[in-house]
Amino acid sequence: CYLQSNTAILGAVYKCVPVLLLTCIKSGNLTRNNYIIKSFSKFTQLPHLAGTEQNLRYAEQIKKEWMEFGLDSVEMVPYDVLLSYPNKSEPNYISIIDQLGNEVFNTSLAEPVPEGYENVSNIVPPYSAFSAKGQPEGDLVYVNYGRTEDFFQLQREMNINVTGKIVIVRYGKIFRGNKVKNAMLAGAKGIIMFSDPADYWAADVQPYPDGWNLPGGGAQRGNVLNLNGAGDPLTPGYPAKDYTYRFSLEDGVGLPKIPVHPIGFHDAVNLLKNMGGQIPPNNWKGALNVSYRIGPGFTDDFKSQKVRMNIHTDNQVTRIYNVIGRIRGALEPDRYVILGGHRDAWVFGGIDPMSGAAVVHETVRSAGKLLSKGWRPRRTIIFASWDAEEFGLVGSTEWAEDNTKLLQERAVAYINADSAIEGMYTLRVDCTPSLHTLVYDLTKQIASPEDGEEGVSLYESWHKRDNWTNDRDAPRISKLGSGSDFEAYFIRLGIAAGRARYTKNKKTERYSSYPVYHSVYETFEIVEKFYDPSFKRLQAVAQVRGGLIFLLADSQLLPLDVNQYADSLRKYAQSITQLAQKHPEEMKMYEVSFDSLFSAVENFTVAARDLHECLQTLDRADPLQVRIMNDQLMYLERAFIDPLGLPGRPFYRHVIFAPSSHNKYAGESFPGIYDALFDIQNSADPEKAWEEVKRQISIAAFTVHAAAMTLTPPA
Amino acid sequence: CYLQSNTAILGAVYKCVPVLLLTCIKSGNLTRNNYIIKSFSKFTQLPHLAGTEQNLRYAEQIKKEWMEFGLDSVEMVPYDVLLSYPNKSEPNYISIIDQLGNEVFNTSLAEPVPEGYENVSNIVPPYSAFSAKGQPEGDLVYVNYGRTEDFFQLQREMNINVTGKIVIVRYGKIFRGNKVKNAMLAGAKGIIMFSDPADYWAADVQPYPDGWNLPGGGAQRGNVLNLNGAGDPLTPGYPAKDYTYRFSLEDGVGLPKIPVHPIGFHDAVNLLKNMGGQIPPNNWKGALNVSYRIGPGFTDDFKSQKVRMNIHTDNQVTRIYNVIGRIRGALEPDRYVILGGHRDAWVFGGIDPMSGAAVVHETVRSAGKLLSKGWRPRRTIIFASWDAEEFGLVGSTEWAEDNTKLLQERAVAYINADSAIEGMYTLRVDCTPSLHTLVYDLTKQIASPEDGEEGVSLYESWHKRDNWTNDRDAPRISKLGSGSDFEAYFIRLGIAAGRARYTKNKKTERYSSYPVYHSVYETFEIVEKFYDPSFKRLQAVAQVRGGLIFLLADSQLLPLDVNQYADSLRKYAQSITQLAQKHPEEMKMYEVSFDSLFSAVENFTVAARDLHECLQTLDRADPLQVRIMNDQLMYLERAFIDPLGLPGRPFYRHVIFAPSSHNKYAGESFPGIYDALFDIQNSADPEKAWEEVKRQISIAAFTVHAAAMTLTPPA
Repeated sequence: CYLQSNTAILGAVYKCVPVLLLTCIKSGNLTRNNYIIKSFSKFTQLPHLAGTEQNLRYAEQIKKEWMEFGLDSVEMVPYDVLLSYPNKSEPNYISIIDQLGNEVFNTSLAEPVPEGYENVSNIVPPYSAFSAKGQPEGDLVYVNYGRTEDFFQLQREMNINVTGKIVIVRYGKIFRGNKVKNAMLAGAKGIIMFSDPADYWAADVQPYPDGWNLPGGGAQRGNVLNLNGAGDPLTPGYPAKDYTYRFSLEDGVGLPKIPVHPIGFHDAVNLLKNMGGQIPPNNWKGALNVSYRIGPGFTDDFKSQKVRMNIHTDNQVTRIYNVIGRIRGALEPDRYVILGGHRDAWVFGGIDPMSGAAVVHETVRSAGKLLSKGWRPRRTIIFASWDAEEFGLVGSTEWAEDNTKLLQERAVAYINADSAIEGMYTLRVDCTPSLHTLVYDLTKQIASPEDGEEGVSLYESWHKRDNWTNDRDAPRISKLGSGSDFEAYFIRLGIAAGRARYTKNKKTERYSSYPVYHSVYETFEIVEKFYDPSFKRLQAVAQVRGGLIFLLADSQLLPLDVNQYADSLRKYAQSITQLAQKHPEEMKMYEVSFDSLFSAVENFTVAARDLHECLQTLDRADPLQVRIMNDQLMYLERAFIDPLGLPGRPFYRHVIFAPSSHNKYAGESFPGIYDALFDIQNSADPEKAWEEVKRQISIAAFTVHAAAMTLTPPA
Repeated sequence: CYLQSNTAILGAVYKCVPVLLLTCIKSGNLTRNNYIIKSFSKFTQLPHLAGTEQNLRYAEQIKKEWMEFGLDSVEMVPYDVLLSYPNKSEPNYISIIDQLGNEVFNTSLAEPVPEGYENVSNIVPPYSAFSAKGQPEGDLVYVNYGRTEDFFQLQREMNINVTGKIVIVRYGKIFRGNKVKNAMLAGAKGIIMFSDPADYWAADVQPYPDGWNLPGGGAQRGNVLNLNGAGDPLTPGYPAKDYTYRFSLEDGVGLPKIPVHPIGFHDAVNLLKNMGGQIPPNNWKGALNVSYRIGPGFTDDFKSQKVRMNIHTDNQVTRIYNVIGRIRGALEPDRYVILGGHRDAWVFGGIDPMSGAAVVHETVRSAGKLLSKGWRPRRTIIFASWDAEEFGLVGSTEWAEDNTKLLQERAVAYINADSAIEGMYTLRVDCTPSLHTLVYDLTKQIASPEDGEEGVSLYESWHKRDNWTNDRDAPRISKLGSGSDFEAYFIRLGIAAGRARYTKNKKTERYSSYPVYHSVYETFEIVEKFYDPSFKRLQAVAQVRGGLIFLLADSQLLPLDVNQYADSLRKYAQSITQLAQKHPEEMKMYEVSFDSLFSAVENFTVAARDLHECLQTLDRADPLQVRIMNDQLMYLERAFIDPLGLPGRPFYRHVIFAPSSHNKYAGESFPGIYDALFDIQNSADPEKAWEEVKRQISIAAFTVHAAAMTLTPPA
């Protein structure tokens, strides 16, 4: 058991993890009286979009309650950032127009509101935040998921040019901002995204409210930026304060230059059903009763008809508020362990993010109870309720920018707390390799929340359902990608990070995220009725997130496993080599070798083993020696940061982990090499493209060597 | 007295600084038997240009002696970097040619060798390292010092276009690489630099060997790169190891695209004497007996003559060697105090760098003596003998790149040890503000080396000669610019840094650097005969450099003065504001305000005061508390680093100090704002130029705010 409290007061209580956690977060079957459920319900009653009055009210309430729970300090931290809202007097919609320009079909202006919420005001209709304004008219072209490979196939195999056309793509597989970027690069003058039942509909499940599928009138909101970690588009690299220089909108980072709009599948059928052109390959076909023809435009019977987008969404510099609470560390107040999750929601946030925010709230309450009993963690704990995550991870990124020097010097770990539940199957953890062992140890101490698994640990339950069979006998832990607030902390600053949530069965449930994602149907009730009626899954996620925070903050020696990082690096090096070996002739011709990378990994492996041996013989009674070893452990993740950033992405600085340039959601290892290899298919100058691969291998090898140096005994 | 040894063994000896130093570095009148003089003499007998066999031999000898002195470890650290040498079979020279192309005058191929060195081989002739190859022919245009303002004056007031011409400029005022860049930007096809007696000739002094002035046949070697801190031009950002990716020469950083060559004033007279065109303004006139006409080309009598440059210098990837020695810190082995200076010389290095290298050698010997008596410093000391400084600070920069993660986390301070003597007047110190107080305290404990000043401290002697009268009653300390090996440590990595040397009287001695700078006349004898016959000045510089290192490595609390940083920041903010206020109307029109910067400085000032108060009440018996405070002190300089770099200069990352873009030698405060203001005169779009000023003010204000945050008590 890692836990070693610095105070003896509750020594007996802290012998083991579950004792602590079960003392803090009530166990057994929870009822509506339980605090975690109460706060979850309370903060999902009203829409609380970033920048709105209601989201400020929730922030104030959270601040007040965190103070009452007993944190040492709680503050509201405002920034003035670029947000984007539909124009209230001119709604966004898409029309089919006849040759006279008359609208013969219009998409719906809002989703049907779920029962019980009919009188709620301020439900923002589905829109694509940061869409350009405009009313482009043109023929539709269907481009499947709008991925880079879909556009390649369209242009190279189907010989279709989308210049001046309006593109329609289905949601799913990749981040929507990447679809928009691809459409822009291809020359489209607008892009429509729809939720296809093939991607947002679970088998044998009813649409909400009778089940948890997406109704045909529901649509997915979301921002369509390509920020690559910049935060507020007008103040890249610096916090958006009163004195901060702001770029003009034209110079802002990642803002799309074309109109973008999301629709549900009821509307999509009407746009798709008369489309003409080629019959698509089978893997371009969704589950609607249409032929999914590619276009351009409609069949002969309708060829005089065009599509017009009507987009009036406004960009607006708006005040947002993070809530930041602190517990001062008893011995090392200058070491920070952070639990952060966002508060802003597209509408009610029933899953995203309030299932996660409730977990943070409960963790704060638990910590407060411990404080009141005399406990105080060795290190400082920071709790964060982020704002404007939905607008590009803005609140968390601005705070990271504001505190960048402190975080670089002092942050031990960042645990993310977005949606706690996106399925009903088992645990899902994405984290840095040095946290793997801690996650396994911790989940062995937590009870499975599944019915019929009394006496089974969360670890066993998870292991059974998602075994990492490819190379080890343990539950699967994945790489961090992006798409939530850990991004700036992990990928820009190099702070060890992780996230945990309850998820679906990836093997049988093929839909993207969860069906009602970012729709008005994300209510408290969808969790209560379908996802977690006993709230035991929520509790288990709370125990994982809270447990990580408590252990990281209070262990004398940081529970970071450097050997595991070595193992992971070897695996990643092998996997990127395999990817390159798809081009054996070019590898030979351009003399591409991964030897330097493997030699660096070998170096790292030896250094990691030596460090762990040092740790065995460490004199734990010597506070300076303990601090020196902990510094080595803490700064390891920092050593993977390259201040020069990845090519063209100055705020993605982690050489080992970053999203692919082609999908923000997907975490790739050795992303510089990965992107360089991806670009080979795309390059007019293969020699130059392979030179870039070689350059990226050299940077990766250097970075792993340099990280290994930080593990060897100082001096 | 700061010194608090961690061992009691020599406690009595270490009570005060001079006791330590006088124990280590022999006091009184030194004789030729003294070790420091012996090693100085030994390492100046033969030419030891970077990349040559002889410079490797010296490296091996240094390594051997450092081991004998008793360091814990000494290693040779090689890199393979781009160097540049004249072609041995095709010498570089400049001709005047007649209309048939016959050479009617040629510049000399070498400097007359000083007495006693006639049989020495491998003296590299004067050349401009990294010059492009080529044999351009054309008319000469004289452009004074080749500064930005000189080219402006030429183009705007004199209406002379140098496109396709060969430019001739005098050495001095700014770094030669900036002259070359300016000539390239102006469209010149070649550039000749000469040493004018007005800039390299002291009054009433004979040329060497009868005095220390530059003979007419002497010329200044030097590199003409525009690296802006990149180190090896082919591996910017990464150490030049075997596996490192190398850019092609075309993509290398900072390589000039035109031929460049340096000449002495005997040759210059021949090129200048027949020049035609306008009579120049008086401040363009040097001290030669010519009219300094601007050209283009020669007077009517000689107008058929042209000038041809014959440049065959080769770039070549070459192995270089740093020598790195270490003393492991007793209590904090993971804290590094670095004393580094270069070993490579253009020829003998009598002043540059061996007067400095001898000081490092002596400091190592002193440290070894102390180690043998049982002493061991609290922190690790690293001694470095850098290679290839003359080729763009390459050895020190590659090592900084190689060790970047370790240095970022662990380096306390870097003290530079280039030439110890460039004049005979008084001490010169350039350092970061947090070291000012330590320098003053230390120099009060060191004896003046000047004759007739027995019993007078170095501080008093220095104070009397160079009083900082503008705002305080203390000896002048200047800002660090660039041009020596501290650059990567200070400006890229944000490690507190300083340098100290003996200098000339700036008020009466107007020549640039010192007359024989980078010529064959830089011998041991020029120091022994003229600059420091008693070697007491050398000793005083050794006491300053060594004293700083010992105190930084062995004080329990780091002797860094944060209040002084606050005072300096205020002064810099005032001075940059004054510069901007030369444009009062534009300041108003574009709403340019420095309020945010002053408010940040105010913040910083309060935080600094609070930190020093905390230090008063610190429990020094608590090792963790001491470490936490020391971390705050150490990381302050790091807080001024912006990973995004200055505009267009990714390796200059210090927001408070960097060279101006127009002169590498000149350290500017708030260089981002400074350059933006400089560019206003140069911009076709004043609104855009002022927007950049505003953006830079905002970045400066943010950085000072963020640095202030690191000074406030943690959590």
